[in-house]
Amino acid sequence: MAEPKIGIYGLGTMGSALALNMAEQGIAIAVSNRTDDLIDAFATRAAPFAGDVTSAPDLPALIAALPRPRLLLAMIPSTRPIDDMLDEVIPLLDPGDTVIDAGNADFHDTIRRTERMAAAGLHFVGMGVSGGEDGARHGPSMMFGGSEESWTGLKPILTAIAARFEGAPCVDRMGPDGAGHFVKTVHNGIEYADMQMIAETYDLLRFGAGLSVDEVAERFAAWNAGPLGSYLYEITAEVLRHDDPLAAGPMVDAILDRAGQKGTGRWTAIEAVRLGQSATMIEGAVAARAWSAEKPLRERAGEAFGSERGALEIVPDDLEAALLAARVLEYAQGFRILDAASEEYGWQLDFARIAEIWRAGCIIRAKLLDDIAAAFRDGAPEGQLILAPGFAGTFARGIPALRRLVAQAIGAGFPLPVLGSALSFWDTMRQPRGTAALIQAQRDFFGHHGFDRVDGKDAPHGPWWD
Amino acid sequence: MAEPKIGIYGLGTMGSALALNMAEQGIAIAVSNRTDDLIDAFATRAAPFAGDVTSAPDLPALIAALPRPRLLLAMIPSTRPIDDMLDEVIPLLDPGDTVIDAGNADFHDTIRRTERMAAAGLHFVGMGVSGGEDGARHGPSMMFGGSEESWTGLKPILTAIAARFEGAPCVDRMGPDGAGHFVKTVHNGIEYADMQMIAETYDLLRFGAGLSVDEVAERFAAWNAGPLGSYLYEITAEVLRHDDPLAAGPMVDAILDRAGQKGTGRWTAIEAVRLGQSATMIEGAVAARAWSAEKPLRERAGEAFGSERGALEIVPDDLEAALLAARVLEYAQGFRILDAASEEYGWQLDFARIAEIWRAGCIIRAKLLDDIAAAFRDGAPEGQLILAPGFAGTFARGIPALRRLVAQAIGAGFPLPVLGSALSFWDTMRQPRGTAALIQAQRDFFGHHGFDRVDGKDAPHGPWWD
Repeated sequence: MAEPKIGIYGLGTMGSALALNMAEQGIAIAVSNRTDDLIDAFATRAAPFAGDVTSAPDLPALIAALPRPRLLLAMIPSTRPIDDMLDEVIPLLDPGDTVIDAGNADFHDTIRRTERMAAAGLHFVGMGVSGGEDGARHGPSMMFGGSEESWTGLKPILTAIAARFEGAPCVDRMGPDGAGHFVKTVHNGIEYADMQMIAETYDLLRFGAGLSVDEVAERFAAWNAGPLGSYLYEITAEVLRHDDPLAAGPMVDAILDRAGQKGTGRWTAIEAVRLGQSATMIEGAVAARAWSAEKPLRERAGEAFGSERGALEIVPDDLEAALLAARVLEYAQGFRILDAASEEYGWQLDFARIAEIWRAGCIIRAKLLDDIAAAFRDGAPEGQLILAPGFAGTFARGIPALRRLVAQAIGAGFPLPVLGSALSFWDTMRQPRGTAALIQAQRDFFGHHGFDRVDGKDAPHGPWWD
Repeated sequence: MAEPKIGIYGLGTMGSALALNMAEQGIAIAVSNRTDDLIDAFATRAAPFAGDVTSAPDLPALIAALPRPRLLLAMIPSTRPIDDMLDEVIPLLDPGDTVIDAGNADFHDTIRRTERMAAAGLHFVGMGVSGGEDGARHGPSMMFGGSEESWTGLKPILTAIAARFEGAPCVDRMGPDGAGHFVKTVHNGIEYADMQMIAETYDLLRFGAGLSVDEVAERFAAWNAGPLGSYLYEITAEVLRHDDPLAAGPMVDAILDRAGQKGTGRWTAIEAVRLGQSATMIEGAVAARAWSAEKPLRERAGEAFGSERGALEIVPDDLEAALLAARVLEYAQGFRILDAASEEYGWQLDFARIAEIWRAGCIIRAKLLDDIAAAFRDGAPEGQLILAPGFAGTFARGIPALRRLVAQAIGAGFPLPVLGSALSFWDTMRQPRGTAALIQAQRDFFGHHGFDRVDGKDAPHGPWWD
């Protein structure tokens, strides 16, 4: 039996997939789980790699099986269970050991846990893992947050199991403490916006332009072969092609229109607002999911006000250009949050590197990310993706198309919480002189808040106070 | 010298205005301040009511001047200074005494402080005060949060100084602990949305329809005489009529277009998302303020992409109908947050009562609030303002007008983060069958998350997993 290089605690869907990925790469592992059943189930699945897998009946045994300095990766819920686990393992670990939380943690908790562990001379790593079960099993994108020392120890293992984009492994150290989990949170926020933008497009094509579900699937498949190519477009085509096995009709029509959410989209929206970087496209996607849950209200309102929408004239190439521009804006909002957080928490995030490790393995992988990485490498003016010269053509073609689409669709009664927000963001940002002067005048009038003048003169109150 | 009924600590703009209001109503008060200068300045201004005003040099003297059970109202920053003040006064107070925080506190802090005070047998009141300096001086709207017992003691004083709507005082107990401060927070969130909606309207009229600033002022004044009548419309007309005293041109053109914010709009947006009640119109307004601060980016983007917009054809009556519908939607989003918080924190908020106490004194006072109070009194279906029969006509006239306006303005390049969000909200809510089924299909495909079926059958995964 080979001496394990790392311990994996938590053998649910994601934990077992990561563990099998490591074993398959010839990395000797030790594994355990809170309950025996998953330990046994894992042993069966890991049989082909049995020489590289040590099973431990519980956490103390798992820790005892690891060489020092120990690497212990937990894939359990990143809430109370992680804190309970730390209570149990801290007395059993030695200075220099590392615990990795590979779940979707709130990065504030990760910062707190890093401090707690550091006080005991231990390393804590918050690592975002994206790609779902399949990604974890065959190559996820991983966003590492923790000390340089713990990165040195983990890098060979993570590099071996990561997804690859043209040979380059999709994993890197984002920064210290909460940086990895925060980057993963924003990844998920972008994922929410992208999924909602796809849902809006599906709505427009099917119920506005009158395409069948199969024709919509074909459209997404065709786009997937072009510059919009991405995992989410690929799977949209895939799921739309399936029929319901239990009744006539497409599968999508058999599914209840209430979207679930596990929190990361909300966290992204909340952190963006807190950091003064409103990400309205992500907010719109979070809102759409929340509103989808209000089925009884929507049924009553539909009855009261009517749910009809008008027909749309959609030019496919126009729509493709519009979606590409909107996708750049969605990523731009995501990177603006990362920028603000990097400043606030002193993480010195490398945006080009983040875009690179998102190019494969993760849910938002997309051809566009290679262009985004290049844009940041070339130095986007003011660090803003929308100003990157590489995207000037995308906007020149896409924004007029997006504008025609949104104006037409809104006129016809389609809700566009994400595509509409994209345009509001764009049209706000391209106005050197906005309307906030009026707001400042009002605030001074009712609250004596004062304002700055365009000419820089020091006269902070309006004549209404004279 | 009359025996004081209440102590006021903090004699800045708002504190001194509230104190003068009380003294003018014949309520004997004791006052103090951290620094002497404001105590002296207050004595001068309070000279007409000198027989009812006791000055105390510091907090201990202020407390000593009050009869038991004491009422001590603090109007100081609701952050660290309130906690520091509690440190100082808790040992000096006796069981049954009450401390009132009349600033804009985060209601989470108010809940925490209430618990801390209760442990010492003391009452803590978190009270929202709206109306700016003028309101505080001559009649604010006040949102009281605290125990029934402390309300009994304060009610006569607050009723005497409150704004009045047709004789009814605009103050009431919202609920326990954080309820008052939360209602005030949402009030401010609605205020943000209303101000941004006004700014968008100003933009459309001036730069789309080509009206002069004076003509825009006239339009707001005319609307103020009709169903849109409200303090914010009144002051918009007022500030737009003023010329810059330092240079030629309207005052509004001399003000820098960077809006300030003090946090309550952000808090509302954050709490809404946390409670699963995305308030996209408030989010849009918070975003617009944040983006207004990014002047250098907007200047560069304007240069790179052009800032021109197209001309608009605006029918004044159409616009009035559109704004009225949008305003109901804005309040509807605000009350949805209040509903969710009331449920979450067990406050049992009375929405009709909240609308009533907002009818006068506060910044968002508007004729519409009387209709909203009536709608809640009559029992809005499912507690949803948009379903209230009283607003059916408002929507029937206003939504088509809003749709024409938004479609036209977006086509012409105007950013509408609030008016556009109003329509997305409306068009989502009137769809009994939304697009979330596709999102659920995607989530099941990549994350095995499962879904519910329309027909209720227990088959939670798609055929892609077979």
